[in-house]
Amino acid sequence: MIAPSFNSSLGIDFVEAKLTKLGFTRLNCRRNLVSASTELNQIKAKEASRMSSLKTSIKINSNISDDSSGSIRQEVSTNGRRSTNILWHKCSVEKSDREELLQQKGCVLWITGLSGSGKSTLACALTRALHSRGKLTYVLDGDNVRHGLNGDLTFQAEDRAENIRRIGEVAKLFSDAGVICIASVISPYRKDRDACRSILPEGDFIEVFMDMPLCVCEARDPKGLYKLARAGKIKGFTGVDDPYEPPLTCEIVIQQEGEVCPPPEVMAKKVISYLEAKGYLQA
Amino acid sequence: MIAPSFNSSLGIDFVEAKLTKLGFTRLNCRRNLVSASTELNQIKAKEASRMSSLKTSIKINSNISDDSSGSIRQEVSTNGRRSTNILWHKCSVEKSDREELLQQKGCVLWITGLSGSGKSTLACALTRALHSRGKLTYVLDGDNVRHGLNGDLTFQAEDRAENIRRIGEVAKLFSDAGVICIASVISPYRKDRDACRSILPEGDFIEVFMDMPLCVCEARDPKGLYKLARAGKIKGFTGVDDPYEPPLTCEIVIQQEGEVCPPPEVMAKKVISYLEAKGYLQA
Repeated sequence: MIAPSFNSSLGIDFVEAKLTKLGFTRLNCRRNLVSASTELNQIKAKEASRMSSLKTSIKINSNISDDSSGSIRQEVSTNGRRSTNILWHKCSVEKSDREELLQQKGCVLWITGLSGSGKSTLACALTRALHSRGKLTYVLDGDNVRHGLNGDLTFQAEDRAENIRRIGEVAKLFSDAGVICIASVISPYRKDRDACRSILPEGDFIEVFMDMPLCVCEARDPKGLYKLARAGKIKGFTGVDDPYEPPLTCEIVIQQEGEVCPPPEVMAKKVISYLEAKGYLQA
Repeated sequence: MIAPSFNSSLGIDFVEAKLTKLGFTRLNCRRNLVSASTELNQIKAKEASRMSSLKTSIKINSNISDDSSGSIRQEVSTNGRRSTNILWHKCSVEKSDREELLQQKGCVLWITGLSGSGKSTLACALTRALHSRGKLTYVLDGDNVRHGLNGDLTFQAEDRAENIRRIGEVAKLFSDAGVICIASVISPYRKDRDACRSILPEGDFIEVFMDMPLCVCEARDPKGLYKLARAGKIKGFTGVDDPYEPPLTCEIVIQQEGEVCPPPEVMAKKVISYLEAKGYLQA
């Protein structure tokens, strides 16, 4: 059975009034959110059914010039010709609505660092720990994206920049969707990372620098790439014959403790503490 | 306070055993899912706290050759040199895990049709109706994506194809994230749409054809583009001097009823009925 959607502001007001009566205001909701959401859905369903039976049809006249602004000008066609000025109320679901649904804030965790510095490991630990707390995450992995969206790009300088640009743009879309997007990409150049930061709302780009010594990364060499680079079989390899520009300022730095790399769950905890402190783990 | 994540399969087994005792098996869970999820989190938190206090450290020896396969080879560094064969258990959060969290199945609703055929209107009605049912959606709009990800593309033939390809790839990522992704793009060529379909798992690409007569779309002309095209100020405009290739087979067709366009909520209802019938509105 399909619950009808709310097609008039009257209907929404009615539900909101009911909710307010029940103490479900956005700013003053102290009750368990999950149970609140369940009750909300029940009230919505009842209200929807009530409205459906009333078959209310409300048309509001108004002039809105641009339907890309978040409102929709709904032009119902009659006899093949448009009838004007029939406005269908503001249609769009905003980022904040999705965040409320998910009980989290959309953002981008941008993990940067040398090959072998533990980016993927941290990304995995993060996605797992956040998921276990009921948070929706999505990992954009430099390598994986190259199989699809960025499959047309080479490893030459300008294509590497385009690779980062596209990942940044996609991460932005995920963040806008309310998702905690975890981008795990070497992204060696400061200007490329800063460009990704610049397209996101203030605070939503959280740069995590895997500050591991080259010798440690090279000793790990999980993909055998350092070996190939040293043998001259890969050209322009970050850390070998291409520079890595560490962030000048970034939100989070992951370093060795003494000469030991922190275990994944400890690294993840550090990032999650940051998210918690900044309010990203609630709506 | 951060709930520690589960770092050993022992811990997960323990929780699973507890859950099974309580009747929370995946296939046999008849209880309210929201309340189940709350109880699950409580049990997890208790277990996590127990594990944390025990400071269990479990190392499992195994050989896994590729950390991109969904498992992670965690190499804990000691004294700057890697110690081998310390496996950190399977880390990844899969599509099905996210779907369970969201209580829906990730998919792509691909809305195709002429300019002015009502794609954006349907996209808005859909996102609103699904959101009101607690479902996470995200609209990828052809125009909007051109401002960001596809900002480097022109309107020439090969760039238009690349535009569609990238939207298809991004939609695939959203679908993999568990989101119901609503792509609203003219996408006039069959082969471009079919290419997007081909990269998605069977059934997850749901093509919605806005089958509206050109004269209706042109009469609406919400962006004034038909007027410009007829005046020769836009070249290669779909429906005027560039073809629209209607789908030969597609999942959903939206048509006029008599000579009247169905209202947005009716169109949305048709799509939502499809999603419901195919099981996309549950995990």
